[in-house]
Amino acid sequence: MILAANANAQGSHVGEWRHPDAWDRPASNLENAVRLARIAEAGLFDLLFLADGNGVRNLDKPDLFAATSPSDRPAVFEPVTLLSALAMVTRHIGLVATTTTTYDEPYAVARRFASLDHISGGRAGWNLVTTSNPGDALNFSKEAHAPREDRYARAGEFADIVKGLWDSWADDAFSQDKASGRFLDPARVHALNHKGEHFSVAGPLNAPRPVQGHPVIFSAGQSEMGKELSARTADCVFAIEGTIERARTLYADLKARLPRYGRRPESLKILSGVTIFVGETEAEADALFQALEDLVSPAVGLDYLSKMIGHRMTGYALDEPMPDLEAEHVGPTGIGKAILGVARAEGLTVRQTYKRILPQMAGNLFKGSARQIADLMEEWYRTEACDGFMIAAPVVPTGLERLIRLVVPELQRRGLFRTAYEGRTLRDNLGLPRPANRFFSEPA
Amino acid sequence: MILAANANAQGSHVGEWRHPDAWDRPASNLENAVRLARIAEAGLFDLLFLADGNGVRNLDKPDLFAATSPSDRPAVFEPVTLLSALAMVTRHIGLVATTTTTYDEPYAVARRFASLDHISGGRAGWNLVTTSNPGDALNFSKEAHAPREDRYARAGEFADIVKGLWDSWADDAFSQDKASGRFLDPARVHALNHKGEHFSVAGPLNAPRPVQGHPVIFSAGQSEMGKELSARTADCVFAIEGTIERARTLYADLKARLPRYGRRPESLKILSGVTIFVGETEAEADALFQALEDLVSPAVGLDYLSKMIGHRMTGYALDEPMPDLEAEHVGPTGIGKAILGVARAEGLTVRQTYKRILPQMAGNLFKGSARQIADLMEEWYRTEACDGFMIAAPVVPTGLERLIRLVVPELQRRGLFRTAYEGRTLRDNLGLPRPANRFFSEPA
Repeated sequence: MILAANANAQGSHVGEWRHPDAWDRPASNLENAVRLARIAEAGLFDLLFLADGNGVRNLDKPDLFAATSPSDRPAVFEPVTLLSALAMVTRHIGLVATTTTTYDEPYAVARRFASLDHISGGRAGWNLVTTSNPGDALNFSKEAHAPREDRYARAGEFADIVKGLWDSWADDAFSQDKASGRFLDPARVHALNHKGEHFSVAGPLNAPRPVQGHPVIFSAGQSEMGKELSARTADCVFAIEGTIERARTLYADLKARLPRYGRRPESLKILSGVTIFVGETEAEADALFQALEDLVSPAVGLDYLSKMIGHRMTGYALDEPMPDLEAEHVGPTGIGKAILGVARAEGLTVRQTYKRILPQMAGNLFKGSARQIADLMEEWYRTEACDGFMIAAPVVPTGLERLIRLVVPELQRRGLFRTAYEGRTLRDNLGLPRPANRFFSEPA
Repeated sequence: MILAANANAQGSHVGEWRHPDAWDRPASNLENAVRLARIAEAGLFDLLFLADGNGVRNLDKPDLFAATSPSDRPAVFEPVTLLSALAMVTRHIGLVATTTTTYDEPYAVARRFASLDHISGGRAGWNLVTTSNPGDALNFSKEAHAPREDRYARAGEFADIVKGLWDSWADDAFSQDKASGRFLDPARVHALNHKGEHFSVAGPLNAPRPVQGHPVIFSAGQSEMGKELSARTADCVFAIEGTIERARTLYADLKARLPRYGRRPESLKILSGVTIFVGETEAEADALFQALEDLVSPAVGLDYLSKMIGHRMTGYALDEPMPDLEAEHVGPTGIGKAILGVARAEGLTVRQTYKRILPQMAGNLFKGSARQIADLMEEWYRTEACDGFMIAAPVVPTGLERLIRLVVPELQRRGLFRTAYEGRTLRDNLGLPRPANRFFSEPA
């Protein structure tokens, strides 16, 4: 079972930063980031995952803006620089950073992740996103965010170029032979000379091939286009589903798409996003869950619900049932549909709905004792709802520490999780082979 | 006196990587980079400086390509990621990375350097370049490199935006008050809403104001446009002149431009690029100098000379005098003019000229005993040829270690160089004040 830790300053809940146990002063706090990385590595997690975006939201809504949560990321490190720093204070854990294909260049992205992979000794991962916040466009000299179809078309070409650039050099290209004066072997380099619809990129990259061949590529889109992009290009999918049935359907759907791209099912790992409230007892977990609810104002709750389902909810009465929005646009990621499904199934009011979703921003919620949590994780894993979990611990860092202290040993006892890091690279630990170089065969 | 260390794997000479004392396997070698950073910090240097480019040259010339030097940067770390890593293994030394304004975005550059500044506790610097290698354009979906005028116009606007984005938040904007739930103060943020000729950038930046207010900005252009850009926007200039007279003229020229931008002379520091061959004796320095000459083939020497003066030299006889190229285009950086001036003054042949310049890629050459070197440095410093030096040590790391062992104590005895780091930030150590926020006054 793969375990990934959401490594943002705040894990999952817009109110959690106010909890007494949460970090003080979480804005761009390096000490916190180092401590979180060390906690996750001590817990043998496969990787740290950093979400990202390129903008600050809600400036036009002062009340809401003042109540901004650190999880809205108004004050964050640029993720690749942060993970480069964290590479120096960790030895085993994978380091996965989000970077957009919509407002960056393939040569630059290939360089930064190759660099992170060399710095970390083969622990880099790239979470490919096309950017969901339309306002980010205004920070990059664009008048408007490109439509999703265009963004995904660009993303597919972008990822192909990045992989091609990572293959610029054979592993043995840099002979670095002082005696002969041959620093490199001109027969062991390939200029990509890509000319496509969105990009033309000559190459080669000015970096040796990454330690992992290709840093691990993550993707998260659950639209038809997102799923096809993942099937074609990703090593790991960050999947968000609110129920085990939906998760199984998505899992089967994604794996079934792989053969069309000549890939085997085990070449794509599916990590299910989950917020885990664990206590020494079920009651302790419930108490934490309740405590967080009280830290959120209705304005923030409603706004968050609006963003999650992609529909403005400020006109609706708080204590009336959730409206039937089935036919309307509810956001591209699958989260909106999942929320509406739960609200309908359980007959929740608007207020109950936002209270329900706030603690499970990561897409799903497990709550209970260590044994109850481990039972749920085992069921999801064994019944092919996922290959592992992208875990947001409520109230960082204590929530993550508690999870590692209580749940990880239970998973180890069941033979579901490692008792030591097996591999040297992130790919090794995830069970993903090093990709062959598409331009050079390597010495056996 | 400011001392900066060229922190590239190879300091100055295309043959030096072959020297027995040079690093083995310098391509993207993290261990080397860490060791070099620690050496420079132990020597109390102000900063590490990383040059950069976005392309691999000479693929079309196989013989030359095979003899590529690591100083041509075919296999390097992306500099901001590397310096983020080095921030974790150093405490005092400044970390200056080169990033181009021609193939990047101001929002992205502002983010990365703000991030590096927060990670390093206020030690970040940005060396602003407009990219000199035309071939880099082909890696960024451009058909050709933009003309210099266009690149500089874009660079000026780019730098203004970056500084404006760094001022997005007042220092006290992130109240992070758990009790009230106010994470930030909406009255202490400024959206730039820049709309200019080359860019439109809304802001605000999604990062707190950098520790230094603005990371230190470096610039190196010695063309008229380059000098104006430096006078308008830079904190430090990396200047390249082959003689003390030329250096004094440039120094006076640059400082005289500052009042037009409302700046005082001491607000711009001028660092003179120099390769320093130092030995226990003058003879030892000479021996190292000679040893390096033998490690370079004529093909490499001629090509290097061609690049430095911006004129193809392969048609000229090696042992004839250097041709008179005064009227021709000899490159934009001032290096070409300096080289031709020296060749003419001393009546050098083509071969003698390339032999002369190869050891002084950093622009100038000091060679001798520690006392001789210190004499030269003192003369340059006291007669206003520079405020300090950007030092390339031949044969890394031993050349830098020797320089720190022999020359630094001599400078300290003369009261020219620190005996301990004075300041907390790079600005502190350089004697540059923290810039005021252009949008907010800070509490006294």
